[in-house]
Order: sequence, then C-alpha cells, then structure tokens
Amino acid sequence: MTEKGEEGPDVPSLERRETRPGRHVGDRYVRIVRPTGSGLRGHGGRYVATEESMAHTGLFGRAWDRGLRFLIGRRLESEAESEERVGVGTGLPMLASDNVSSSAYATEEAMRVLAFAGGAALALTMPIAIAVCVVLAVVIVSESRVIRAYPNGGGSYIVAKDNHGVLPGLVAASALLIDYVLTVAVSSAAGVAAISSFVPAVHDHRVLWSLGLIALLTVGNLRGIREAGVIFAAPTYVYVLSLLGLIGYGLFRIASGDMPVAVLPRDAFQTEGIEPLTALLVLRAFASGSVGLTGSEAIANGVPNFKPPESRNAVITLVWMGSIFATLFLGITYLATRIGIAPDQFEFETVNSMLTRSLVGDGTLFYYIVQISTAIILLLAANTGFSGFPRLASVLADDRFMPRQFAFRGERLAFSFGIIALALMSAAVLAAFHGSVTELVPLYTIGVFVAFTLSQSGLVRRWWRLRNPGWRLSMAINTFGTIVTGTVLVVVAYTKFLYGAWMVLLVMPILVGLLFAINHHYRTVHDALLLERPDEPIPVLKPPVVLIPVARLDRATLQAVAFARSISPTVRAVHIASTAQSAEEFARRWRRWTTEVPLDVIESPYRSLLQPLLKYIERIDERDDRPITVVLAEFVPRNWWEWILHSQTALRLKLSLLFRPNTIVIDIPYHTEDTGHGVAPRGPEDSSQ
Amino acid sequence: MTEKGEEGPDVPSLERRETRPGRHVGDRYVRIVRPTGSGLRGHGGRYVATEESMAHTGLFGRAWDRGLRFLIGRRLESEAESEERVGVGTGLPMLASDNVSSSAYATEEAMRVLAFAGGAALALTMPIAIAVCVVLAVVIVSESRVIRAYPNGGGSYIVAKDNHGVLPGLVAASALLIDYVLTVAVSSAAGVAAISSFVPAVHDHRVLWSLGLIALLTVGNLRGIREAGVIFAAPTYVYVLSLLGLIGYGLFRIASGDMPVAVLPRDAFQTEGIEPLTALLVLRAFASGSVGLTGSEAIANGVPNFKPPESRNAVITLVWMGSIFATLFLGITYLATRIGIAPDQFEFETVNSMLTRSLVGDGTLFYYIVQISTAIILLLAANTGFSGFPRLASVLADDRFMPRQFAFRGERLAFSFGIIALALMSAAVLAAFHGSVTELVPLYTIGVFVAFTLSQSGLVRRWWRLRNPGWRLSMAINTFGTIVTGTVLVVVAYTKFLYGAWMVLLVMPILVGLLFAINHHYRTVHDALLLERPDEPIPVLKPPVVLIPVARLDRATLQAVAFARSISPTVRAVHIASTAQSAEEFARRWRRWTTEVPLDVIESPYRSLLQPLLKYIERIDERDDRPITVVLAEFVPRNWWEWILHSQTALRLKLSLLFRPNTIVIDIPYHTEDTGHGVAPRGPEDSSQ
Repeated sequence: MTEKGEEGPDVPSLERRETRPGRHVGDRYVRIVRPTGSGLRGHGGRYVATEESMAHTGLFGRAWDRGLRFLIGRRLESEAESEERVGVGTGLPMLASDNVSSSAYATEEAMRVLAFAGGAALALTMPIAIAVCVVLAVVIVSESRVIRAYPNGGGSYIVAKDNHGVLPGLVAASALLIDYVLTVAVSSAAGVAAISSFVPAVHDHRVLWSLGLIALLTVGNLRGIREAGVIFAAPTYVYVLSLLGLIGYGLFRIASGDMPVAVLPRDAFQTEGIEPLTALLVLRAFASGSVGLTGSEAIANGVPNFKPPESRNAVITLVWMGSIFATLFLGITYLATRIGIAPDQFEFETVNSMLTRSLVGDGTLFYYIVQISTAIILLLAANTGFSGFPRLASVLADDRFMPRQFAFRGERLAFSFGIIALALMSAAVLAAFHGSVTELVPLYTIGVFVAFTLSQSGLVRRWWRLRNPGWRLSMAINTFGTIVTGTVLVVVAYTKFLYGAWMVLLVMPILVGLLFAINHHYRTVHDALLLERPDEPIPVLKPPVVLIPVARLDRATLQAVAFARSISPTVRAVHIASTAQSAEEFARRWRRWTTEVPLDVIESPYRSLLQPLLKYIERIDERDDRPITVVLAEFVPRNWWEWILHSQTALRLKLSLLFRPNTIVIDIPYHTEDTGHGVAPRGPEDSSQ
Repeated sequence: MTEKGEEGPDVPSLERRETRPGRHVGDRYVRIVRPTGSGLRGHGGRYVATEESMAHTGLFGRAWDRGLRFLIGRRLESEAESEERVGVGTGLPMLASDNVSSSAYATEEAMRVLAFAGGAALALTMPIAIAVCVVLAVVIVSESRVIRAYPNGGGSYIVAKDNHGVLPGLVAASALLIDYVLTVAVSSAAGVAAISSFVPAVHDHRVLWSLGLIALLTVGNLRGIREAGVIFAAPTYVYVLSLLGLIGYGLFRIASGDMPVAVLPRDAFQTEGIEPLTALLVLRAFASGSVGLTGSEAIANGVPNFKPPESRNAVITLVWMGSIFATLFLGITYLATRIGIAPDQFEFETVNSMLTRSLVGDGTLFYYIVQISTAIILLLAANTGFSGFPRLASVLADDRFMPRQFAFRGERLAFSFGIIALALMSAAVLAAFHGSVTELVPLYTIGVFVAFTLSQSGLVRRWWRLRNPGWRLSMAINTFGTIVTGTVLVVVAYTKFLYGAWMVLLVMPILVGLLFAINHHYRTVHDALLLERPDEPIPVLKPPVVLIPVARLDRATLQAVAFARSISPTVRAVHIASTAQSAEEFARRWRRWTTEVPLDVIESPYRSLLQPLLKYIERIDERDDRPITVVLAEFVPRNWWEWILHSQTALRLKLSLLFRPNTIVIDIPYHTEDTGHGVAPRGPEDSSQ
C-alpha cells in the first residue's frame, strides 16, 4: 500500500478547508506550508508547534503565564541548548567554588570538636588541617586519573557502574544525591552565618534566611543560569584574593612582631574542657575538618565543559583548586590558632569573622568585603548542588532508575523537576537541623567519601582490565587513592556515627532499594507493553458492547445514545432507581421514547448508584467476551464552582472503572453553553457532506 | 415495534450463560429470577441491588466499611423509613427540649446585660422575664393557629413561601438555617458550661469539649437516632422535675423565712456598674432574655409526627411547653434575684449552678442531678438543630434552592450531607466565638424572630385570602403575633446590632442570594437539557473522527488502535516529538508497523505535549463537522503509588478536553496485570461467537 492510499475517504485532513468542501483531493499527503494563527506550522503530516501554541488561555492561565515569564523568563526551544565551553580562568570559579568555599567553615568545624577538650587542644587544629590537605592532595592526583579515563565526564555513578556494576553504581549515585542535598543545606547555612556574624538579628531567624537563599537559587536555576561564567567568576576571585590578602597581612604582622589581639566569642567553650583529649576526639576533629574535601569531584564531572584540550585544562584547574583551597585553609587555621581565636558555642559569629576582625578591626571596609564575598561564594557553592543533582537525576531517569519526570527539560531547558525536588529536600533538611552548619556537617562528608572510594576502586579495576600504556602508575595512584579515601570514610562513619552519620548510612541503602524498585517497575511495564514484532498486525475487533447508565431522559442522554449507536449496534441503557415505583415510571417513559435501545432498570433500596452499577457491569462482562464500553453522559457546567451543585456520579464511576480491567470509558460531555444542542444534534442530512 | 424486537442479535443479555452459547433466544425479555452471588437479583430487565452489592472490596474498602458499620450501624433500605407517631407524653420531650432548655441560660443572659449598670439593676431581671413570658404566650397562641392551618407541618419557609411568595420564603429559610447552626453552637456551649460549673478544668478547654459534643451528635444523627423517644423523654423529665423541685424548695425556704445565703461568683461584675441604666440597656437585657423564645417553632414544624388527632395533640404539647418554660424561667429568675445571685464575669459558673448551690449546698447529689440533666437537655436541644437543618435543607434541595446532595438520604436514611454541613458550620461558629454562650446569644435570636414574623404575617394574608369560618379571630391573633414578634425583632436587631447581630443581618441576604443563584443554575440546566418532546427521535450520526495520540509503539497503542478501528473507519494517530530527528524516526517505525492508520507528527521544540496536541485537535475540529473523539491509551499501574512514576499526560489531556465542547474522550486503560494482552488481543476468530 502506498502512502497515497493510507487514508480512507472519510479522513479529514488539516487542509480540507483549502479545497472546495465536498471535493476529494487526490493526494492528501501533499500538504502546503500554511502559517496559521493556531500555533502549528508544517506540512506533509509533519507539524511544528510554535511558541504561540504554548500560551495558556483564560484569566488564570494568562496570569500564571505572565508570572512565570517574569520569574523564569521566556520559553526556550530545545535547540537553544548549547554547551558553553570554558577555559581555566572561567572554569576555576565555576567548578571550584564548592570546594574552595569550604575554607569558610572547615577550620571552625575542626576547632569546635577540639574545643570539647579545652582551649589548649585547639593547637591541634593545625596538624589536622595539614592532614586534610594531604588527603586532598591524594584525592587530586587520583581525580586527575579519573579525568584522563573519562574525558566525557567521570561522575562517580558512571565510573562505579562502568567498572563495578550496577549496584555499586547506584550506591555511588545515592551517596551523591544525598550529598548534593547537603551541599545546598550546609552552604546556605554557612552563607547565612557569614552575614549573621555582623548582623546578629539574622541569627535569630537563620532558618528563614537560609530558606530564602534556597528559594532564590531555585528560581535562578529554573531560569537556567546561563550567564554563569561572569556571575561565578567575580565573587570567587574577590573571595580568594581578599582572604589571601588577609592571610598575607596576618603573617606579616606576626612576623613583624605586631601580634594582633584576638577577638573572643560571645559564648566561648569552657577553657578547661568537658571531654578528655583522646585519639578518638582528634579523629572526630579530623572528620569534621575533612568537609574541606567536599566539592572536589566537581571538576572530574565537568570535563566536557572545558575548551580543548579538555582533559589538560581540567587537570590544570583541579591543581589550581587544590592549591587555592590548601593555601586558604592552612593560612586561616594557622592564624586562628596562633592569634588564639576560639569558636563561638552558639554559632553567633564564625571563626573567620573573628579572625578578620582581629586582624583588620571591626567595621572596616575590608571586613565587610571578606564577609560578603564569603556569603556569595557559599551561595555559589550551594548552586553547584543545583546543577549537580538535577543532572545526575536526569542521567538516572534516562537509565530508568528514577521517575522519568526527572529527565524532562522544563520551559527554560532546565531539569525543573530535579531542581524543585532538590529545593524541597534541602529546605526540609535545613529546617530539621535548625540551619546550623555544625549540626549538618557530620552528615555531609560520608556521601562524598563513599563516592570517592567507589570511583577510585572502580578505576583500579579499569586499569587492571585495560592495561593501557602507563597502567601500572595509574593503578598505583588509584589504589593509594582508594585506600586513603576508604580510610577517611571509615574514620568519618565511625567517629560521626552517633552525631548524625547513622542517618545517612540508613537512608543510603533505602535510596538504593528505591532506585532498584523504580527500575524494576519500569522494566516490568516495558516488557508488558513490548510488541512481539515491529509489524505486529492490528487485531480486528467486533464493535464493543456499549452500556449507557442514564439518570434522566434529557438532551445529554439523547446525545449519549446517539453517539453510542454511531459506534456500535449493541447498545444497552441502564437506570438505577431508588424505589420500585420510580423504576416502573422510568421504564414506562423510556419505552415511550424509544424501543430501539433496550433498558435495564435496577432498583437500589440502599440508594447507592455506584455499587449496583458496578455489579451490573460485572454481570454483563461475565456474559460477553467483548470489552465492556461504558458511555457516560457527563454534564459540564460553565463554571468550575457549579460543579459542586452536581453530584459527581460520573466522575466517581469513572474512577471506579479505571481500575477495572477490560473496561473502556467514553465520556460524552454535555456543555450548557453549546448553542442549544451539544454534540449530537446533527441529523442524517449532515452525513452527505 | 414490539418489545420482543427491541434488541439486536448482538445484545448480550444477563441470562446468556443460561442458554447454550451461540444459540439465539427468541424472547430475551422473559428473564428468570436467578439469585446469584453478585449482589443483584431480579428478572425481566428489572433488578434489585441487595445489601451485598454495597460492600466495598479491597483492604481499605473493607476497613472503611467495617469502621462505618461500627460507627453508624448497618445500612437501611428506603422502605425502613417510617414515621414514628408520638403522643403528647413523648412529643413533649422530643419537640420541646430546645425551648425548655433555654431556661438554663435565659436568666443569666438577661442578668449579664443588666450587670453593666451595677448590682442594683439586677432587680430588673424579673420584670424582663415576665415580659419575655408574655411574648412567649403571644407566640404560642399564634403558633397554635399555624398548627391549625398547616397540619402537615408549618415550617416558616413553607408558610412564608405559600402566602408571601418565594423571596420571603427564602428569607425565612435562611433565617432558620442560620438559627439551626446557632442552636447547635449555643446549646453545646451552654451544655459545657453546665459541666464546667463544677469541673473548672473543663472551662479551660471549653471549645474542645463543645466540639466533642458536636462530633457525638453528628455520629448519632448519621446513625439516625431512631430510639429518639426514650432517649429524649427521660432526661427532659428529670431536668423539668428537678428544677421544679428546686424552685418549690426555694420558694418554701423563702416563705418560711429561712433565707438561703447566695453563692457568689469568682469574678463578679463591678457592683457600682460601668454603664448608666438606660432604657436601651433594659431593652438589650430583654433582647438577651428573649433567647427563651427560641425553639418554640419546633412543634408547629413537627405536627405530622403526632398521633391523631395531630393538630390537637400538637396544640396541647405547645401549651405544655410554654407553661413549663415559663414556670422554670420565672422561678429561676425570681429566686436568683431574690437570693442575690450575680453572673460570673468570665463564665466560670452558670447562674443556675450558683442558685442550686445556694439552695441545696455544694457537692450534694441533688446539685449533680440538676447540673447533669441540664447538660443532657442542652445536648438534646442541640440535637433539634441536627434534625431541623437537614430536613429544611432537603426541602430546599427538593425545591432546587440548595445543592441536590442535601436531598439524598445516606446509608442510614439520614440526610448525611446536611448533617455534616451543619456540624462543620456550627463547629466553625463555636470556635470563632470561643465557645462562649454570651458571645453567641446576640446572633441567636434574630433568625428566630425573622422566621416568626414572616410566618405570622403570612398567616394574616392567608386568613384574609381564605376567609374560612372563624377567620376574623385567627387573623386578629396572627396580626397581634406579627406585631409583637416584629417589634421584638426590631428591638433585638437594634440593641444587639453592634454586639454581633450585624453579622446575621449581613449573612442572611447573602444566603438568600446564594439560594436564588443555585435555583437559577438548576433551572438553566434543566431548560438546556429538556427534550422538546417525550418521543424526540434519536439522531443518526456518522461514525466519529477518531484521533489517537500515541507516545510509543507498544501494546497499549495497539489496543487503542484496534478499538478505534472497531468503532469507526476514520482513525488518525498523532505523535508529539521533541526533536525533528525523533519525529522522523517515529514516523518511519509507524510506517513499518501499519499503513492502514495515517499518522501526523508534531514537532514540539518547547517540549510540551499538551498544548500542541490541543492546537492540533482544534485544527482537526475546524475542518470536520463530526464530533472529535480522542482515544487515550492510558497505562494503569497495579498499585496507586506507581502512578507517580508515570507522567500523567493522559489525565491532564482528559482534564483539558473535558471543558472543550464537541469533544468526546475514550479512555482505554491498559492494565499490566491483564494476562499478557489487555483488552485488544481477541482476534477476528472471536467474532464468530
């Protein structure tokens, strides 16, 4: 059969109005491009929806549209998607802000643990910072191998799935998903802490302020932050440079013997300490300090974002990131411990703020530059969660491990579903932990190190399997990386278990189970729906048995009966009456109206419509092999509020029938605004057209 | 055409399985009574649904059923409805509890207003009580005329509509509806006050306790309180007798010179007063005291509930009610003012409770009998709201002034919808007014007097119109009644306006407008749906144009296409693709699958499915006169939670199409649990059956 013959003579084509009515067009597949106002353009059975087609109508629809356009901007076509390639200069702030921003709280978090053993124990902060930087160095060298192996982006999920299999891949994915949620929560909380250090009033409502930041990021990401480069670059560099300046100035003052006077916290910890200084406490402090390692996987994920040579640029950026973070972290830690700054028990002021005040004095411009750029870089760090989570979720959705809604791009090409899901979850976590960085940190690092360990060990297997030139060195590096990150993972999980890590260790397997269950569901459905062969013939069915529940004898019923008879010769009406008398009366009126459509009447002494009808359909179904088709004449009022004046029997019946196998529901709406007649009235004289 | 010929050869009858398959039965209208387990019994196209048919299935359904049976009892057939006729002895407690129970708070409410003018002003309570009783006497005489004129129940709505027209009828109806809500609220609040008088802890949570009472009444009324007679009789008589005893004992002690010592309230009003004793204040006190008149219309409403001679029994009951109320009210007022009891500023203890304690002493058995029977009679008074509101609402719904759901009887023959609506509204009112009788009273009496005035004046017109024997006396009585109740109405509205009466005066016209709007809607719909003649012919329609939106080429699509072709030769598929490439790819695969069903492909660069599809349907519709029929292949997962894993495109499309005129939606559910194939697979070989 040729394309010409594909349509029967009755098929209306979109171009029919172009030809004289009633005249047959020889070849309907030749369609003319004809721009109309209706939102579609195209020809030959292929159409393209214009932006116009997307516009909502109605008062609320238009207001919603306008609000959305204001908030997130105009709609974008799929083709507008472009991969903006960046060099090292722009790539560094874009991909490194998460890691570098950790310097805003890593020192303080290590100190807060040591402070339990008294003021003297704070001196141990510096060795701990050095240990963290050593681990960071190992991670960076290992990650450089990931970049080499996966130039298309080596997310831990992909690396682990690729080399270890699906289960470890999903473990890495859940770890990362949890981690992204915590990145958003911790960074927003820390950003607010940077501000509340000099605006104490903010501290009282820090949860609200943090939620405000998350809302801001949500809107920004729904817009799709396309001018990312510029937005990210400036404040990151301001932060890095101002802190470098601060550290340089501090070192100079100490070297020149001009020892600054320490600004002390409002509520310092007890100087004699409340816990002994055990090895466990030191390990716990190290675990807290290792938040400084979070975010260092971002560059390996983002390799394809770099200009060529991608891998080389990525590795350079990675080294820069590590060097900057280490310099800031070590510098801040050295100065803070040297000057004698102690953390504030109730998180009113950050250690960094106290350090800056000690060095440059209260209320100076420089102080405000440091604090505000700290807040901004933390906001940018939170934003990396907003780019990472939806992207990972969409990859998982493409692989059918997450609901497919996560793979849809919204009007602005952003993964709206993932963005909103992340915003809700991180807001919930933030509120549950009172917007406190210190309460959140014990949960934070686990996910990162699970992902690190799985991706490093995955690479070990990869090198062993492939044995490319130079595989021995790469394998040695990644084996060492596996051991180091694995050890840190054990340390963090062990020392922080009771402080919150247990929650992550509980949620992670649940999440993995959920991802598996979702995958199982999709695969089951896919199997069930699969055609046995691509040219499976369409079965020829007899016309269906059509049942029409009728409540009254009116136009809506007339219309339903007329439609039912147009699709099948087998039509039955059924009426539910609450008394024998009304049953009799209805049957009498029906017979006077028509003898062509048989009527069954069910008397329902318990006044229920739904249940007897369902039982009746069940019986009919038992006695006939064809699919049961129920025609519902549904009255549609002009305004939504008029709905409540009608008992929603049709709606409830539809819901009940939806879950009934082998049952088809035909909805025939009757609109009162129809010019008098609704769908049905065109009589036989119309058929000639 | 005879009945025999009514069915085509294809119509499955419920009895088909009884005959040999494939054999035609000559006369299908002869159906055999065949009790089956399926919940229907019957024959000849007439079936009766058994109680079994009502049972819910599924885990939740069965649990719901069991809970409901426990709470409100087994379902009742419509025939179980019976009018229980009562004599005077049982009728009195049933219909008079509302009015008689007012004696529990009428004295106190009058005193509370007078107390503003200082302790000395309380002496005016007695004259006010006498004035109230005089009005009551007028009302009773007038009501006895209503009973005579409307032996089938003379609700103010009916009397006013009958004699004045629809608008006054609706005004009376709204006044009564508001009044029923307030009856429930005030009586529950007063009932709780009777208890909190000796259990102070109850006072702290009086709103919660009152809401608990309303919940109790709601459940009771959903059950349908069928044992009403006994439940009502005992506590009403206990209340009346114990209070009569109390009054007698009090009078005896005063007469014998053994003057009781007044129990004084925790927080008395200032004895010097804070307002001058003006005529307005006295009128306000009278308006408060006239709550004693509420509930006196119940007997005229309930005439048909009496044993014959109905009117005579009703009038006797009415006189008894008035006498009892007047005796209690005057007695309590006399003793309270004589002994020198003053109201408690913060409503910790009722005046009646203080009076009883003054007379019989604290903690005596008699005291508890009085308080508890007071609480119970007030609960019964609240219950009269629960019988009045749903009944009036159902009458209004029958007259199409209220949503028709109010006219449906629930499983226990009660008007469930009205009961629940009343419960919600009275609970809201009660909570808004902090469960305080004193705050609620200014709103209460207006509705009653609006209804009284309208029904009395209606009767005046009626007597004038009919001029039956004795019409002059009746007309004189009702004219006097109109004047008195109208005057009280003006007094109440004027003196209580700022204290809350304005709300009722505001809500009443809004309610009237709403009732009219609802009626207008129903009448419009009725007109629109009306058949022009009872034997209007069924139009013969061409088979519809069937559109099938397809997302994938799978079994669900196959099934939808097969069904579509079984009902119409004109079938078109349409596919929305997000890129030109995937559009091309799908079209290619479709052509390989079938050349019998033409396919249109729409490229949607903005990734929306819904909008382009709607535009496309619009275009098809513009070009063809037949109703557009959209077939949706809807995937139905096994469990409800699996829904979230599927984007509800079909559902959203259905919603959008519902409000589109001239559009029919056919839902073809695809169930994965179907044994492999769903609806479609039965091939042509089945047609031979």
